[in-house]
Amino acid sequence: MITSISNPRMKELAQMQRRSRARNQAGVFIVEGLRMVREIPYERLEQLYVTEEFYDRYKTEPIFSAKKEFVSSQVFEYISDTKNPQGILAVVRQYKYSEEEVVAKTGYGEGTGRKRPAHILVLDNLQDPGNLGAMFRTAEAAGATGILLSQDCVDIYNPKVIRSTMGAIFRMPFVYVEDLPTPIENLKKQGIHVYAAHLKGGHTYDKEDYTKGTAFLIGNEGNGLRKEIAQCADTWIQIPMEGKAESLNAATAAAILMYEVSRQRRSLLID
Amino acid sequence: MITSISNPRMKELAQMQRRSRARNQAGVFIVEGLRMVREIPYERLEQLYVTEEFYDRYKTEPIFSAKKEFVSSQVFEYISDTKNPQGILAVVRQYKYSEEEVVAKTGYGEGTGRKRPAHILVLDNLQDPGNLGAMFRTAEAAGATGILLSQDCVDIYNPKVIRSTMGAIFRMPFVYVEDLPTPIENLKKQGIHVYAAHLKGGHTYDKEDYTKGTAFLIGNEGNGLRKEIAQCADTWIQIPMEGKAESLNAATAAAILMYEVSRQRRSLLID
Repeated sequence: MITSISNPRMKELAQMQRRSRARNQAGVFIVEGLRMVREIPYERLEQLYVTEEFYDRYKTEPIFSAKKEFVSSQVFEYISDTKNPQGILAVVRQYKYSEEEVVAKTGYGEGTGRKRPAHILVLDNLQDPGNLGAMFRTAEAAGATGILLSQDCVDIYNPKVIRSTMGAIFRMPFVYVEDLPTPIENLKKQGIHVYAAHLKGGHTYDKEDYTKGTAFLIGNEGNGLRKEIAQCADTWIQIPMEGKAESLNAATAAAILMYEVSRQRRSLLID
Repeated sequence: MITSISNPRMKELAQMQRRSRARNQAGVFIVEGLRMVREIPYERLEQLYVTEEFYDRYKTEPIFSAKKEFVSSQVFEYISDTKNPQGILAVVRQYKYSEEEVVAKTGYGEGTGRKRPAHILVLDNLQDPGNLGAMFRTAEAAGATGILLSQDCVDIYNPKVIRSTMGAIFRMPFVYVEDLPTPIENLKKQGIHVYAAHLKGGHTYDKEDYTKGTAFLIGNEGNGLRKEIAQCADTWIQIPMEGKAESLNAATAAAILMYEVSRQRRSLLID
């Protein structure tokens, strides 16, 4: 059992909770809490840390067939990112999808065996960890096929993002790209229609046909899409707003768009 | 200029930031930051506190025609709820809508002059401040007509909720009710169809007709609707989910439902 916070591995873990550079150098990220740990694909699990109290209570959990290491409650508090740690924490290998995998023209609908046209989110300088996590969570549920992120988006391996994905991080293909215009051009070359979600969009979002390959450009929470990114789109769309509302939350807007795709495609099954 | 944090009014403000009881006893709530302060209806503004630095920079803002009081930066940090306070804070009178006002069968579409059928959210034990604020924000944009909250929902006047409403708090009618089943019964008596958003809902949400009076029951983030509340609904609906997603965030689910109402009603203008 590890009982000292001077243990070099514990120091490293605490670093990895706070610093993206520490995570990226090691090529891993940290997952906390039973609900999230249960969803880790076993082949990606590198290390598992647990308190005795937690293990005694949950020893029948399948995850404990993996090699685990006990740490004292005090050490666990030191390595945890949460205020009230449960007592289970895993180190997981990072994902490396290629741009081709993420923007593949067709993905497979989970459990349906049917191919489907691309349904992609392209995120431009998204900054809020909760928003990014929420987008992953909703994207999986809405049947999106991949997520492209500009290099200056918040780090997907930030512990707050991981928590808010509710496990979608393990399943939704994503990739950070240096420069958005080139991959957007590639989407268009593949016949994927690119829509910019824009407050000045001239097209109402629900009047468009999303049964074909579709990508949505979603911008920063405060400033929206950068002009040079918005200009890459085929069509600017907007979500109508009533009252004095000036904008929607970025994750909310993405959810409304992705579920409109889902709605249209469910009413027209594609084989 | 107020320069001491021992000033009794400053102590009271700091209390009101943290405690719902202090807010409710005074019948007020606190609004911070220029963007939110700009949206305060003047007749509800009770007090306005500002730092000299802030005033010097924004003295042409219309809000400064109201009576303001200067506080030192140090005092402002003490009374502020945010990490990096802007330097402007207002005390605003609380809202008291009657249940009848909130569940009125018809509201008026902002700016359209057209009457519209009811479009109501009923929130059962919602706990997350960010979620509640987000629901207000989206509700206004989607044209919802009112929000009913169970007494055990998070306090709408919590500073985090206020911030996330982005101003919708000033415009969206809402009321806390002792016991949800009775007001739900009243909705039904008025011919408003009551839908429970439920993971076991037998009806797909987008196959229902929301052009008539509509209310959605939305449950707690972790546990969903309480059984006795869900049973009050006319119809249980669900939002289809793909992948291994087990649920949607409560505010995301509400947004998808409310924008389906908006979509259907826009395609069928009602006079």
